Amino acid sequence: MSVNNKKPNNTGNGKYRGKSTKPKSARYFKYKPSGKNQKGKQPAKTDPKPPMKIMFLGGLNEIGKNITLFECCNDIFILDCGMAFPDGDLLGVDLVIPDFTYVEENADRIKGIVITHGHEDHIGGLPFLLSKVKFPVYGTALTIGLIENKLKEFNLNHEVKLNVVKAGDTIKLGCMNVEFIHVNHSIPDSVGIAIHSPAGTVVHTGDFKIDCTPVDGGMIDLARFGELGNEGVLALLADSTNAERPGYTPTEQTVRASFERLFARAEKKRIIIATFASNISRIQQIIYCAEKSGRKVAFSGRSMINYVSVAKELGYIDIDDETVIDIDLIRKYPPEKVVLVTTGTQGEPMSALSRMAYSDHKKVEVGFGDFIIISANPIPGNEKAVSNVVNELLKKGCEVVHESMYEVHVSGHACREELKIIHGLVKPKFFIPVHGEQKHLRKHAEVALDMGMEHKNIFIGDIGNVVELNESYLKQLPSVQAGKVLVDGLGVGDVGSIVLRDRKHLGQDGILIIVATLDTENGNIISGPDIVSRGFVYVRESEDLFDEVRANVDDILYDCAYEDIHDWTTIKNRVKDGVSKLIYDRTHRTPMILPIIMDV
Amino acid sequence: MSVNNKKPNNTGNGKYRGKSTKPKSARYFKYKPSGKNQKGKQPAKTDPKPPMKIMFLGGLNEIGKNITLFECCNDIFILDCGMAFPDGDLLGVDLVIPDFTYVEENADRIKGIVITHGHEDHIGGLPFLLSKVKFPVYGTALTIGLIENKLKEFNLNHEVKLNVVKAGDTIKLGCMNVEFIHVNHSIPDSVGIAIHSPAGTVVHTGDFKIDCTPVDGGMIDLARFGELGNEGVLALLADSTNAERPGYTPTEQTVRASFERLFARAEKKRIIIATFASNISRIQQIIYCAEKSGRKVAFSGRSMINYVSVAKELGYIDIDDETVIDIDLIRKYPPEKVVLVTTGTQGEPMSALSRMAYSDHKKVEVGFGDFIIISANPIPGNEKAVSNVVNELLKKGCEVVHESMYEVHVSGHACREELKIIHGLVKPKFFIPVHGEQKHLRKHAEVALDMGMEHKNIFIGDIGNVVELNESYLKQLPSVQAGKVLVDGLGVGDVGSIVLRDRKHLGQDGILIIVATLDTENGNIISGPDIVSRGFVYVRESEDLFDEVRANVDDILYDCAYEDIHDWTTIKNRVKDGVSKLIYDRTHRTPMILPIIMDV
Repeated sequence: MSVNNKKPNNTGNGKYRGKSTKPKSARYFKYKPSGKNQKGKQPAKTDPKPPMKIMFLGGLNEIGKNITLFECCNDIFILDCGMAFPDGDLLGVDLVIPDFTYVEENADRIKGIVITHGHEDHIGGLPFLLSKVKFPVYGTALTIGLIENKLKEFNLNHEVKLNVVKAGDTIKLGCMNVEFIHVNHSIPDSVGIAIHSPAGTVVHTGDFKIDCTPVDGGMIDLARFGELGNEGVLALLADSTNAERPGYTPTEQTVRASFERLFARAEKKRIIIATFASNISRIQQIIYCAEKSGRKVAFSGRSMINYVSVAKELGYIDIDDETVIDIDLIRKYPPEKVVLVTTGTQGEPMSALSRMAYSDHKKVEVGFGDFIIISANPIPGNEKAVSNVVNELLKKGCEVVHESMYEVHVSGHACREELKIIHGLVKPKFFIPVHGEQKHLRKHAEVALDMGMEHKNIFIGDIGNVVELNESYLKQLPSVQAGKVLVDGLGVGDVGSIVLRDRKHLGQDGILIIVATLDTENGNIISGPDIVSRGFVYVRESEDLFDEVRANVDDILYDCAYEDIHDWTTIKNRVKDGVSKLIYDRTHRTPMILPIIMDV
Repeated sequence: MSVNNKKPNNTGNGKYRGKSTKPKSARYFKYKPSGKNQKGKQPAKTDPKPPMKIMFLGGLNEIGKNITLFECCNDIFILDCGMAFPDGDLLGVDLVIPDFTYVEENADRIKGIVITHGHEDHIGGLPFLLSKVKFPVYGTALTIGLIENKLKEFNLNHEVKLNVVKAGDTIKLGCMNVEFIHVNHSIPDSVGIAIHSPAGTVVHTGDFKIDCTPVDGGMIDLARFGELGNEGVLALLADSTNAERPGYTPTEQTVRASFERLFARAEKKRIIIATFASNISRIQQIIYCAEKSGRKVAFSGRSMINYVSVAKELGYIDIDDETVIDIDLIRKYPPEKVVLVTTGTQGEPMSALSRMAYSDHKKVEVGFGDFIIISANPIPGNEKAVSNVVNELLKKGCEVVHESMYEVHVSGHACREELKIIHGLVKPKFFIPVHGEQKHLRKHAEVALDMGMEHKNIFIGDIGNVVELNESYLKQLPSVQAGKVLVDGLGVGDVGSIVLRDRKHLGQDGILIIVATLDTENGNIISGPDIVSRGFVYVRESEDLFDEVRANVDDILYDCAYEDIHDWTTIKNRVKDGVSKLIYDRTHRTPMILPIIMDV
């Protein structure tokens, strides 16, 4: 693994609690506001600190494709570089990445990319960016392991310098020192960061929750957030995903208790558990329960096998070699001796669980002997697909546990009370809610207001927005280029609004193609008109309609020839208008009408 | 209004409680099972009762297009005749209706159609059925009013006999007497039914909840369900929509209290409330709050105006004429004097609320001065669309209340504890859960098991299923034709699996059309090949690719001519295969490839 452990300012001791990482040139890196709750001296009035700029290229007004740029004294670094899965209206699009124009244009000033954790919405854009411009990448061991795997697929792994850090480490990126702070989330080795800069200290939580009894890695380093708060924090950027939810997110241990109950209930049945491939802690808990109950564990789904192998190699999964069996071998064991861990919690048509539900899985057939647990909530937009998979599994006779009442899933993001704790510890001067749709950002702003922050010190932004801030002000600067770049097959950015509009039209109403070969000289019909349709009506039952269309086109072409019209565009428009009207009158439908005139 | 109040066996007294409607020939209509909890004598063993048949043509394994047929001694009647809204995979389809083949084939034996309430999933299929075969329709006043309105749109209102009944009434349909029982639901005038037949009494709840303090019509007639139970019920068919939810559905009054709090909080703002147009009780509560706070009420959205006018005409909405204003006049009032009631709770793109959110509403512009309440939950599948509308409204500066924490919506369906009450009162011999997807039906069956019913006496069915039952058995008979008929524009049933498959392909990947005119004699190219694409790539940026395709087709056609191949199908297949491969190699995409050969 070509990973370097680079620790320019590493004061970490390998544990997560109570470390005070003080950069060398403390003169620059300490922000000392004049508020009465803050310790430290007043800054010299003759020596105003330089401002910091924050540029949001993704992750605001969306959950996905997180990417934020921090700039101070002309140095820039990038925090996270994610992708998003396409909404339903982005027909045929495989994935969505940020618009990297601004990054490319400022590549010479960019010192590196810092990644908070290994989820796709934080690392998925990396191969696309790094295939254009190269920067060193910094992240914790599991994060870097997952990135390396991803870069291999794009043949980029030897071209990019990947640097492994630990929570507690600090790295130097130009004038900014970036400190990594351990947080809890639904993937191990997640970190938040503190940016110690000439402008002051800026804290970004990354994706986080407060789990006092997590399955891996220990509790979030709240003490360090508190220390930073006491030292003085210029601005806080924090995860807003669950800002609408009151209370606390339960600990991951909750799921362990539920699994133990359900394993007992499953008795003589085979257990199949669907979960996110990246949720290593969840998979670890399943392994514990399986080993305790004497069951073998098999894994299904490409991403599941991928994540598990990286996590196992790096020591993030503890599993006895005797426990794992190949999916091909599960038939050799009685059902009560098997747990199958699979992808497909979101009802994705190609996922392993969906294939099982629709009898399309090559290796696993499900039925009365199966006890199936879906250990995840549907992501908004996937509810119907998940529900369909559940119904199909039930029809096959499977027992299916998926409801929230069974506590087979907990979120990886902080709810309102947890957010309050972070706000209370960090005590920032300015607050910028991130990682959320508008409704989440606004609810998170309400949390800050509830905690006593002034309205004017909160900035709710959008992608492309740039803010400049120092100890005395936060102001918005003119926006920079930002947006969605659509990836479809090998094409990056070649599907735009016109192509999508056509796909929508074709998908809703189908197409009617009218082809005729005309004599260039006089416009007389040499061949055709032929009518071909797809996705419009069942052709064999609509012959009368097609005959009528053909006669209609014949008339129009004849009229054009008679009127001596030889301009193909005019002829095509006449055909299009005439046929559209006829079709609408007869069917009240509006297929795409495409006249093609060949000339001889 | 051409409605007849036909009460063949009406013993109702206009109130909802405690009526015992006993059909005349009690010998036939009373079912007296031998269970120890049941009163009454044993049936004579020499005189077995004739069986009843129940045919499910819709409403099982789906929420939508409810239609059930009850047959006894060769007489049939239809209960409900609904439509369903298309799932996301039914591209371009406007609505889905049941397959009426079985109804048409047995029209001579069908005595009428009984409707439980005026929701689209119970009445929406009527115009399509009644345009083929005519039957008298029976329902309560509001239900019949809504049906009449619907039939007018299809010019069917003078051809069908519509009969108004009241809860408590009993009508005779062949050998079966159908008694209407008042229930609570999210539309007034909802009823369940008891079918008193030679086979015994069968109870169907319709859509229901138990609301002890409803806004209209009084509490569900639990006493009558209990009386029937004591008299002996052969089978219960009951609403399963909320069978996954523990506890009780709150009373509609809850919403009133929430509205009052929110009206106070809205202060100087204009209030906009989105709700289901059919939820007359909800609209009534909004009117009460508006009148109390001195606000005028305007209505927006075609279906909202339609429902309100029918309900007002029939006396189901109590509103001061002074209170209602036209939507065009709302600008003339200060914001704190206006409530706008609108459609669009499901984020439907064409609905009034969506248009406001996307600045596309002709009459209403929203912004900082608006306080918006979405008084409904998203129906599964619509979550993302609703969320998008909320985010857009927030971005415009509106205050938006939509979360469950504010109690601005309650369900119209019974939760598990309410279902138990009905089971406990009706004490049926057999139970058939209806109105639900597989997961709902199974959970409802669990409720019956919890109440002590035996597994063998529960039937979980699917559409097309037929069961035969009498006091001693319930058995499944061979299924009858049932399914989805898709309505697209004026076409009913002319969009099938091939058209849908093509729409999906076109919508995901677009189309590439290759046209060439060939000489019939020798296969030489006379004109073309021309390449036309839609929904594939942005053409102007893909000229090289298109040149390559054209050259490729040229080669293929030349080879065909050289090999003396004149069979157009073979030539087309060669072009299709060649171009598909080339396109996939270059783009990893699979547009529909459509070769069209013209011959001269």
